[in-house]
Amino acid sequence: MNKLHGIKALAFDAYGTVFDVHSVVDLAEKMFPGKGKELSQLWRSKQIEYMYLRTIMGRYIPHDRNTEAGLTYAMKYLQLPGGAAERKILMDAYEKLSPFSDAKQTLPQLTGIKKAILSVGTPSLLKNLVTNAGIESQFDALLSVDEVKVYKPHPRTYQLAIDKFGLQRQEIGFVTSNYFDVAGAKAFGFQVIWINRNSALPDELGLQPDTELSSISQIPDTLS
Amino acid sequence: MNKLHGIKALAFDAYGTVFDVHSVVDLAEKMFPGKGKELSQLWRSKQIEYMYLRTIMGRYIPHDRNTEAGLTYAMKYLQLPGGAAERKILMDAYEKLSPFSDAKQTLPQLTGIKKAILSVGTPSLLKNLVTNAGIESQFDALLSVDEVKVYKPHPRTYQLAIDKFGLQRQEIGFVTSNYFDVAGAKAFGFQVIWINRNSALPDELGLQPDTELSSISQIPDTLS
Repeated sequence: MNKLHGIKALAFDAYGTVFDVHSVVDLAEKMFPGKGKELSQLWRSKQIEYMYLRTIMGRYIPHDRNTEAGLTYAMKYLQLPGGAAERKILMDAYEKLSPFSDAKQTLPQLTGIKKAILSVGTPSLLKNLVTNAGIESQFDALLSVDEVKVYKPHPRTYQLAIDKFGLQRQEIGFVTSNYFDVAGAKAFGFQVIWINRNSALPDELGLQPDTELSSISQIPDTLS
Repeated sequence: MNKLHGIKALAFDAYGTVFDVHSVVDLAEKMFPGKGKELSQLWRSKQIEYMYLRTIMGRYIPHDRNTEAGLTYAMKYLQLPGGAAERKILMDAYEKLSPFSDAKQTLPQLTGIKKAILSVGTPSLLKNLVTNAGIESQFDALLSVDEVKVYKPHPRTYQLAIDKFGLQRQEIGFVTSNYFDVAGAKAFGFQVIWINRNSALPDELGLQPDTELSSISQIPDTLS
């Protein structure tokens, strides 16, 4: 485990890093037995693809609408029954995700530094997520890409943390489970902690995290 | 079939539209029996993802290097034996793709208008592809995104056709099989022909082609 030095603030990705999307996968399986996993995977991959494409085309729309567009595609592709009502049930679940237990336990231990969420979610969605999870008081800021109208890994999204905290890039530690976010944050100049809970393979983008951990609970040790 | 009106030039996407990548899939299956299809799919999807990510991060590299990075990831992920030598065999095949027969037959019928390739491939790669295929004389221009250092569907890539032909956006018909390219070209303002040979589902991006055809051979009828 490589240690990080000179960190004055930590910025956390939300989806898949602090918040567990597994509950949505379970719900999808309950609604569409035998198809839930495939639906969740295709939904997620289309959601991300649409974020990339809209950023490149300069056609930003808020994250919840991209998420629903991905779901619409995935349900059509898999020829699942249902329409707006079924989408609403899944979308509602997506807005009420639980935090990972390692996140909930470790956040209060990270004292003496600033902490923020830096996410693709809209401001109101992020507010609801941290409030439902009872971790609102842990964060000094909830930073949403909605302010800059592009998605990660665009450099303007990471600039939000600089603008908020008035720090140098290398003074910010960026925590994420998603490799596109590792790459983007590293390209921007943050120190990057990759939370690799499932032993994923790094992408071949010529950008590596400063440290790789299997759990957020290991973060305090990397900062000491 | 909707007709297009006022078209003065046609710009064609290369990979999957004019050139058939199927031969690479066959070769992959020959090299890695039982794994060729999965390798090809993951390779293609990573290649595209890396193009999007590098465009968003402002870290363009030439297409052949993205293609090889995607292949490297896919071979590691599938735990296939081999390294640089195996990659070279597959990369070489990717540079010698055959044209679809409908493309080769139809291009000479499209007279009285300008024709171009507008592709993510590097200039030398595009030159080799059309020369090997014996269709070099069919094109007035080979336009490569390498000139603008971003990938499709960035608007700057489509601007290349405007700069070359000095036409209005709606006077250019853009021909592609890839939906991300349909979306990008439509967002830019071209008239768009989607060549949907395999009855794919359109993506949920709020952008539709002007006409959808199952074969390039139907293009002459849409222009009359």
